[in-house]
Order: sequence, then C-alpha cells, then structure tokens
Amino acid sequence: MFQSFKVTARPEQGPPRLAALREVLAAEGLDGFLVPRADAHQGEYVSAHDERLAWLTGFTGSAGFCAVLTGIAGVFIDGRYRTQVKSQVATEFTPVPWPEVSLGAWLAEQLPDGGTVGFDPWLHTPGQLETLERALKGRGIDMRACENMADRVWDDQPAPPRAPVRVHPMEFAGESHGSKRARLSEDLRDAGHRAAVITLPDSICWLLNIRGSDIPRNPIAQGFAVLHDNGHVALFMAAEKLDGLTGHFGPEVSVQNPDAFENFVAGLDGPVRLDKGTVPVAVSDILGDRVVWGDEPCALPKARKNEAEIAGAAAAHLRDGAAVVELLAWLDAQPAGSLTETQVVSRLEALRRNDNALQDISFETIAGTGPHGAIMHYRVTEETDATLEDGHLLVLDSGGQYLDGTTDVTRTIAIGDVPEEARAAFTRVLQGMIAMSRLRWPQGLAGRDIEAIGRMPLWLSGQDFDHGLGHGVGAYLSVHEGPQRLSRINHVPIEAGMILSNEPGYYREGAFGIRIENLIVAQDAPELPGGDAHRNMLDWRTLTWVPVDRRLVVREMLSTDERDWLNTYHAAVAEKIGPRVSPDAKTWLDAATAPL
Amino acid sequence: MFQSFKVTARPEQGPPRLAALREVLAAEGLDGFLVPRADAHQGEYVSAHDERLAWLTGFTGSAGFCAVLTGIAGVFIDGRYRTQVKSQVATEFTPVPWPEVSLGAWLAEQLPDGGTVGFDPWLHTPGQLETLERALKGRGIDMRACENMADRVWDDQPAPPRAPVRVHPMEFAGESHGSKRARLSEDLRDAGHRAAVITLPDSICWLLNIRGSDIPRNPIAQGFAVLHDNGHVALFMAAEKLDGLTGHFGPEVSVQNPDAFENFVAGLDGPVRLDKGTVPVAVSDILGDRVVWGDEPCALPKARKNEAEIAGAAAAHLRDGAAVVELLAWLDAQPAGSLTETQVVSRLEALRRNDNALQDISFETIAGTGPHGAIMHYRVTEETDATLEDGHLLVLDSGGQYLDGTTDVTRTIAIGDVPEEARAAFTRVLQGMIAMSRLRWPQGLAGRDIEAIGRMPLWLSGQDFDHGLGHGVGAYLSVHEGPQRLSRINHVPIEAGMILSNEPGYYREGAFGIRIENLIVAQDAPELPGGDAHRNMLDWRTLTWVPVDRRLVVREMLSTDERDWLNTYHAAVAEKIGPRVSPDAKTWLDAATAPL
Repeated sequence: MFQSFKVTARPEQGPPRLAALREVLAAEGLDGFLVPRADAHQGEYVSAHDERLAWLTGFTGSAGFCAVLTGIAGVFIDGRYRTQVKSQVATEFTPVPWPEVSLGAWLAEQLPDGGTVGFDPWLHTPGQLETLERALKGRGIDMRACENMADRVWDDQPAPPRAPVRVHPMEFAGESHGSKRARLSEDLRDAGHRAAVITLPDSICWLLNIRGSDIPRNPIAQGFAVLHDNGHVALFMAAEKLDGLTGHFGPEVSVQNPDAFENFVAGLDGPVRLDKGTVPVAVSDILGDRVVWGDEPCALPKARKNEAEIAGAAAAHLRDGAAVVELLAWLDAQPAGSLTETQVVSRLEALRRNDNALQDISFETIAGTGPHGAIMHYRVTEETDATLEDGHLLVLDSGGQYLDGTTDVTRTIAIGDVPEEARAAFTRVLQGMIAMSRLRWPQGLAGRDIEAIGRMPLWLSGQDFDHGLGHGVGAYLSVHEGPQRLSRINHVPIEAGMILSNEPGYYREGAFGIRIENLIVAQDAPELPGGDAHRNMLDWRTLTWVPVDRRLVVREMLSTDERDWLNTYHAAVAEKIGPRVSPDAKTWLDAATAPL
Repeated sequence: MFQSFKVTARPEQGPPRLAALREVLAAEGLDGFLVPRADAHQGEYVSAHDERLAWLTGFTGSAGFCAVLTGIAGVFIDGRYRTQVKSQVATEFTPVPWPEVSLGAWLAEQLPDGGTVGFDPWLHTPGQLETLERALKGRGIDMRACENMADRVWDDQPAPPRAPVRVHPMEFAGESHGSKRARLSEDLRDAGHRAAVITLPDSICWLLNIRGSDIPRNPIAQGFAVLHDNGHVALFMAAEKLDGLTGHFGPEVSVQNPDAFENFVAGLDGPVRLDKGTVPVAVSDILGDRVVWGDEPCALPKARKNEAEIAGAAAAHLRDGAAVVELLAWLDAQPAGSLTETQVVSRLEALRRNDNALQDISFETIAGTGPHGAIMHYRVTEETDATLEDGHLLVLDSGGQYLDGTTDVTRTIAIGDVPEEARAAFTRVLQGMIAMSRLRWPQGLAGRDIEAIGRMPLWLSGQDFDHGLGHGVGAYLSVHEGPQRLSRINHVPIEAGMILSNEPGYYREGAFGIRIENLIVAQDAPELPGGDAHRNMLDWRTLTWVPVDRRLVVREMLSTDERDWLNTYHAAVAEKIGPRVSPDAKTWLDAATAPL
C-alpha cells in the first residue's frame, strides 16, 4: 500500500532538536537560521532527506518554513494549515500566519537591534531573497548564506534518494529528447543565451524522457542539468541511478556526478539563463554577472501536451475511472455507520492496484467525511479516522500515476440522507463545474480571466471557496504542474494541450465539505455556424469519467443546458466505463448515470 | 447645439504642414520629432490649442501619435481607428498599427544608422519615455527633449483655453476640499512624502471642488497643482479663470500663474510623489532624485463616490433617462427610411437640452445605423450621415453632463424588421449585460477577474467583441475615468462607490452593430440567508433607466432568471421614468416595458 495512516511527526520531538540547533547557531555567531520545507528543487513533495521542517517542528504541511531565532521560533504557514499546525507543533514554536505576515516584517520586529540570520543557499531562490532583502533594507539585519545548520544537528538524517531511473518510452512521450533539446536550444540561441540551468526534476525528466522514483507520488529523479545553446545537455545525477541509460541518452547528453555541478556552473560562459523563482541562490551566486533572468525553459513546452501525451492521459483516465466506479459501487452497498475513512482509502488504492498499470498514487488520498470534508487538505491518519455516518457528505479526492498519464478526481458522495442546504450548495458547485466545462473562450486568456465562470453560481448565493478553481497536471509527472492554473493569481495564457483540473468546492467549517473535480484539456474549438470566423477560440475536452452523485443534485436548480450537459456526461461515463467494470458495478453505474 | 457634424480636418491640409515641420527639424539638427494626441494633462479630450495631431495629419481619433522623420511620417493608431485613419490622412502619412508595432521598434527600423529624435517633454510621461528608451538601447538613437517644433510652424494655433471656473457645491461634492486635502496629505505623511504633483485636471477639480469648461465634454479646468504634506495646495492656473473663488479656496490654497509652476517645482523639498503614467517628463526631469514614484493621489479617492455623488448620479440618470425615452418614443413613430443619423443626434440633444440642467453632452453621440453600427467609435458627420432603413439596427450611445452627475447610455434599436441572426446576437449581448448586472462577488476582485461574466453568452456561440466591458465614470467629470475598469487589462480592485459602465456589444463588419449599456455603481451586498457570513461581497446598483428594445429579444433564449431580471428592470423603468415624460412617450413607455 502506498498511502500510510501513521502519524509521522510528534510535537514532543521538536523542542530538543530546536535546542540543539540553537546551540550550533550560538557557536557560529548566528542570531537565526531559516529552515524551509523546500529542497534544492523547489518541489511540492520532498524526500525524507529533505524533511527538515517536519523533523525540526513536527509540522508536515506541503509549504511553509521555520525561522529559528534565539528567543522565538516562528513557523510560517498559509491558510490551509492554520488548524493543522496547532496540533502538530509544541508550544516552543510560534505559528505565524503567512503570507499575511512576511518573513521580512517579522524578522524586523523580532530583531529590533539587527543581527545575522543564516540560510542554506541551495534551499532558497533569488526571488525569495530579493523580496526578503528589500523588506530588510536599513534594518541592520544581515542575511548570510552558510552551510545547513539543521543538517549538522540531524544525526540520523536519511541519505538522499538513489532510486533507479527508467526510460519514458516514445509511445507515451510523443517526442524524442533530441527533438526537445533542439527546439529549446533554438530558443536559447534566439535570445542570445549560451546556456540555461535546469534545477526542477520534472523539467529534467520531461526534457530527457526519463522517469524516476526519488520522491513519493512524483515519478521524478532528482538532479541538475545544463542545457547548452547547441542542444547538448550536461546532466548531474548519481551514476548508480542511471544504469543502462547510455544508449537512451546518446552522445549529446553527458552524465556527471552531482558533486561536479558547482564547478561546472562556475566554468560556464555567459549569458546563462536562470529562472529567478526556482533556481537556488547558490547557483546565481556562482554565476554572478553572467546571469540573465528568464523563464524556466521547460515549463511551457512541458505544459503543452502533445497528441501522444493527451491520448495517454485519456487512456489512463478510463482505467482509473473504472477503479473509482468500483469503489463508489461498493461504497453505496455498505450501510451508513459501517465504514471509516481509512477503509475507503485502502479499498480505493486496492482497486487501483488491481490493474497492474498503477505505478503510485498521485497524492495522498483525501477522504473527509462530515466535518472533515470542510478541511480542504485533510489527510486521514489512524488518530483522525472517522466513521461515515448517516447525513454525511464524503469528499473523496484521489489520483493515480500511470505510465501513460497522471489522474486526479474528486467526487462528493451522500452517506444516507443529507441536509437540503448541502444539496443546494452541491448543486451550485456542480453548476460552476459545468459552466467551466462548457466554456469556449478566445485564445490568449489566462486562468485569471476565466476563473470567475466556475464560481459565479456560488457567488450569487453569497458563497465562495478559498482555493483556486484548478491546477495544471503533468503527463506521468507531478499532479500539480505549472505554469498554467485556473486561479486569480495566474496570468499565463491557456494553450491547446494544457491539462488542468476543474474543481470548484464549498466548505462549511465544522459541518461539511463539497468538491467536484474533473481533469480537462484545452483544445482548439471547432468553428460554430454564425460564429466569428476570424476568432481563434479554445474549449475543453473532458478526461475524467466518473458519475456525479445524482442524489445530491437539486434538479430544479439546473437550467436546461446544465441538465443536458450532465445527462450527456453521464451517458458517456456509462458508455466508456461500463465495459470495464464488474457486473455489480455495472448495475450500479447504470443507475448512477440514468438521465436526470 | 454642442455636437457638430462638420468635418474638421481635411487630408489635403497635412502635407504642406508636414513639409514646414521637416524644414524646422533640419534647421535644428533633428532627424525626427514626435507629435502626440496628448496634451500636458494626458486627457482623452484636448483643447483646440493642443490639437497638434489633427492639425498636422488630419487624424481626429482620441488616441495616437505621429512620428515625423525625414523620409517617413508614421501615424500610430490603435484597432479602433484602422479604417478611419485611411480616409483622414494624405498618402504622405503612413498608418502604423499600434501597439502591435511599438514606437521603439519602428524607430529602430527606420533609423538603422541612429539619429536624434526630438520630443516635447510636457507631452510625454516618464513611463512612456522609459519604455521607449529601453527599446532603443544600443540602437544609437538619441531621444532629445526640446521645444515643441509643431507649435513653431503652427502660425494660427489657437490660444490655450481660459474658461471661467465655478465652485462645485457641497450638495453635489459631498465633502469639502479641506477634508479631501486633509486625508490625502495624511497619506503623504504616512508614506514620508513631502508633496505630490498633480497634473490631471479632473483630479485638481475633484480635490478643490471646482469645475471649468476648458475642454469640450469635460467640465474641467486645466492647470497644475502641488499638494503638500500639511494639506496646503499650490494651484497653478490663470488668474482670469478664477474670478471670485478666493473665499472658496480659503487660506490653505494659494493660486499662482502657470508660468511660475516650473520654478515652484524646482524649489520643492523631496521626496515628491509623481505618477509615472501621467506626469510630464518635464516635471520629473526638474525634480531629479527628489522623485518618488507612486499612485496619482486623487485617482482612487475620486473613484470611490460618496453618498452625495451617488445620489446625484441617480438623480441625473432619471432626468437623462426621461430625455432618452422621449427620443425613443419619437423615433418609433417615424417610418423606416424617413430619418438620418444626424437628425436622431440633433433631436436627442434637443430633448436633453429641454431640461435646463444639461451643462454639456458627455461625449459626441454615436448614432450608427446598419453597417455604421459596426464601427465601434463611429462619429457621424455631414459626409457620412446615413438613413435609418428598414432592417437596420441603430446603435445610439450618448450621455449628458449635469451638475449632479455624468451619464452614458447605449441602446440598440430595431428599425423595421431585422434579421433573426441580429436578434439572436442582441439577445446574447443582453444576457451578458444581465449577468454582470446580477453579479455578486467577493471584495478584492478587479475588472479583469469578472469581465468574462459579461462575455460568456457570446463566447458560447463563438462570438466576442473587441472593447472592454466597461469603464469608470466621473461625478460631473470625465465620462471615462480611471483607475477601475471592467477590462482584462485592469487589476484595480472594485470598491463600493465606484461607478462603471456595463456595455457588452457585438459587431459584424459591413452589416450591423449591437451595444447595450447601463451605468452601475458597486455597493456592499446585503447578506443572504445561507450565505457565508464571514465574506464581504459586493453587488451592483443600476443607475440607468431606459427600456431595452423588446423587439430584439429572442424570448426563448432567456433563462427564467434572465427574463425575471429584464421584467423587473422594465417595471422599474416604467415607475421611475413614466411620471417624467410626455403623455405620448408615457404610452410608448408602457408598451416598451410590458413584461416579456
């Protein structure tokens, strides 16, 4: 089983580690040190080797950092984790609401007489440092790059991961790494850049058509790479991970030990393109005035999925949809009060595993029943495991990693008789999901420009939700992939081939949660009779085929167009998934997809 | 009559003026000179004294500029004016599509060996110059601030305007200038700024509760002002304009001649706040390192209308709505083929003038029938004046300036029997207008975040329109007022009190145009039962009360909610406007507002 329900960090482990760290800081003449969640690759997930924040504080969220000073240790956490942090960290740690309180403002307040704060330059980006140093201007606080002080006191720190790397076959990649290197290096030449440093593992894996398993849930291999303007790549990755890959790489990709990376960068001719938001400060410091800031070279090309990747995603979703339908059919057959959240998660993972194609789950399954559903990033443990009671809504958000694609689907399921206000809110969430699914829009718009479409039904009733409408999704890569997002902070134009999630929700604290999520891929929209022939427009193709719980839909609230969409969607679910499931699930599916 | 149908510029006047200008440039050792539409106050309308672009080129659009070089004279015009420019300028001028082609790129192409291009530093902003100089880096092209070369060859240039200034009474302003100066200077003190230079006439008029008539359609007085951090204001305006205003101004507002402005600025203690997007380069050059860039200090406070301003706007709209209803009733009584566009415009202005409250029209009325309706900024002249024929749609976009408010309303009217595809498009435009009118949204969103709501019905049919959904509107000030806009390029959060237009449209070149426009004001939305109590949401209050042409609505396309909105709106129009119109118009109005 991939998912574990163990509680991995305990509040009581934090204080002695904090004391040890403070001793080292005193010996080094530092007034503070930053311990971020991030590793050198700025990924959402990190390896056990890089779990410094959880090791020190007990906090296991996917973003945040601890600023350790002599008299206070601030744990900076965003809105998602305000409740969680309280139960995970000891009183020696002080939760700080972030980004409402910035690190700069907090340091200035805590160190009124100035001081020296250390940081590991491999774990922070130039963008972060720039913001921080701007805020600290004139405050007498000096940020000093130094060795990682947490690592020094972490005696039993696990070693960096060394999982074997596999070739990602052309059948799924759709383009050779030679072709990718050629077109990316052409971009470099056009811009007059001699090279680009790539430090994001999913970029490296996409560029070189490889996959690994250094990090849970993400089929990536950690490493660094330099793309030269002649299309050659220098890859810095432990040789033991790359057994048998020489033929795949060919003569234009050279492999070196990660230890050689710093010296290699130091020897590069400029200008060298770096992405301010993802590269470690250590790299830009080495390059100095040879740096030219630019976009991460793989981000956009990787986001524009090619035909093979889209076909793979579609195939993965049929396989994954069948497993989810089996789960839903089984779930409906159990009486209210007879199951707990972990049983649902375990059964779902087992059903996904029934098909040997599953490589991993794509993230820790969220199964939140009743009040737990209102915790947007709820992760069930042995301690929180709750029973699915009559009247609950169950939010079930899960996905799989398959060689041909990455899935991510959320359904909200009625357990017994649910309150009318929950059904009304569910219907509004569904209306938003349908509105985005049906959208057609002129090329050039970004997530920010269209996200409101998916929220409007809730807004009209004075309701809303506090997360984005959707995120990008990788092709057998990270389930959260940029640069595009359906979010009001995203300005990247959506292009044909980009896969996104469409997941409006509604959360009533202490009562219930709702989320409905399909993955959708942007495509060139067909011309319509009477439409403007000169406009290039996009629309969505749906990838996810799993029934929406009809018992939660208030039929009279839907317009004819909305009802038509849902009935058409359900007919397609029955047609695509029906032949793939057991007889019992098929019977259930026919009822679950009957016209409304 | 305010509006004129005369053709004011003729193509044949341009070439001799261009030749004269080039002689002066040669004598001054300049390879080029920039002639912008803008004056020193960056307004949308300029005085006859500042009509340099029209004088030189013949082009009378409200934005653009001419770059005069030795061998070519490029007239830079945006998408609205591509057709118009062709008929207005002689072949000696070369239209350049802008902003697709930037001035910097064009100069670099036209002056491959470099050169010196002059510009009048009072007519350009530091923001414009910065963009230009960045594009010219390394090109050997030198931008040189100099005296205005066009003025030097313009023998009969009209004198700058000297219209008398009047007090804008507290009844309409709602806040004394002392109170406004006090809160704006507090902002300056909080930011550590000693003073702010204000060069926008509508900002000065708002701040000091005065109005003028230096510029057609805009009740503003041209001048400059400096707001000190103690709340005192130095106003630079010709004394002859300010007769009898000493008592209104009081001791904290000093008046000086505009000639004294440069020396006064030179003597200011820094830091002095300037708005990079509106201040003349001349001012920032004088201040040098005392400049601190910041927001125009009046822009946001002016945009947030107070209760008196909103009440005034509402009153002005009832008065104005009655005049428009009289026009529509009269128009419907005339047989197709019996009227021309100028007759409609003249009659509408006469009806608005019937009430002595009209101070001016708020812009040149757009009356475009049939194919003219598809020209978004069509301005009818004696030469273009067309007959309203059976089967036409008439786009009628107009507004008035009243002491208590500024109006702007567009209705599209069926002339005889119109094609079904026009009715279908009209209904989609109406659906977008209704969707925005009904919207409720969480505080903090900008125009960009919600504009799609007003376009979605068109998008779903493969249609769209090429202008913003709406613009800010002043309180007896400019009909186009920032900083807020319902536009995908606008990031300013919409706040309670901001007045905007809601004007989706549809344009089929050579065939017909459609636009429906109401003014709406943002307000705190009442809490709804079942809504999220912790969210602050906004909604719109409608200001415009004029019937939407029911003959153009395809009833079956509207949802129940949309039909309810329209019927409720029409009932309110009948109730509010009915008592204010003639018996004939009342009879017409009752039919025009009957439930659909």
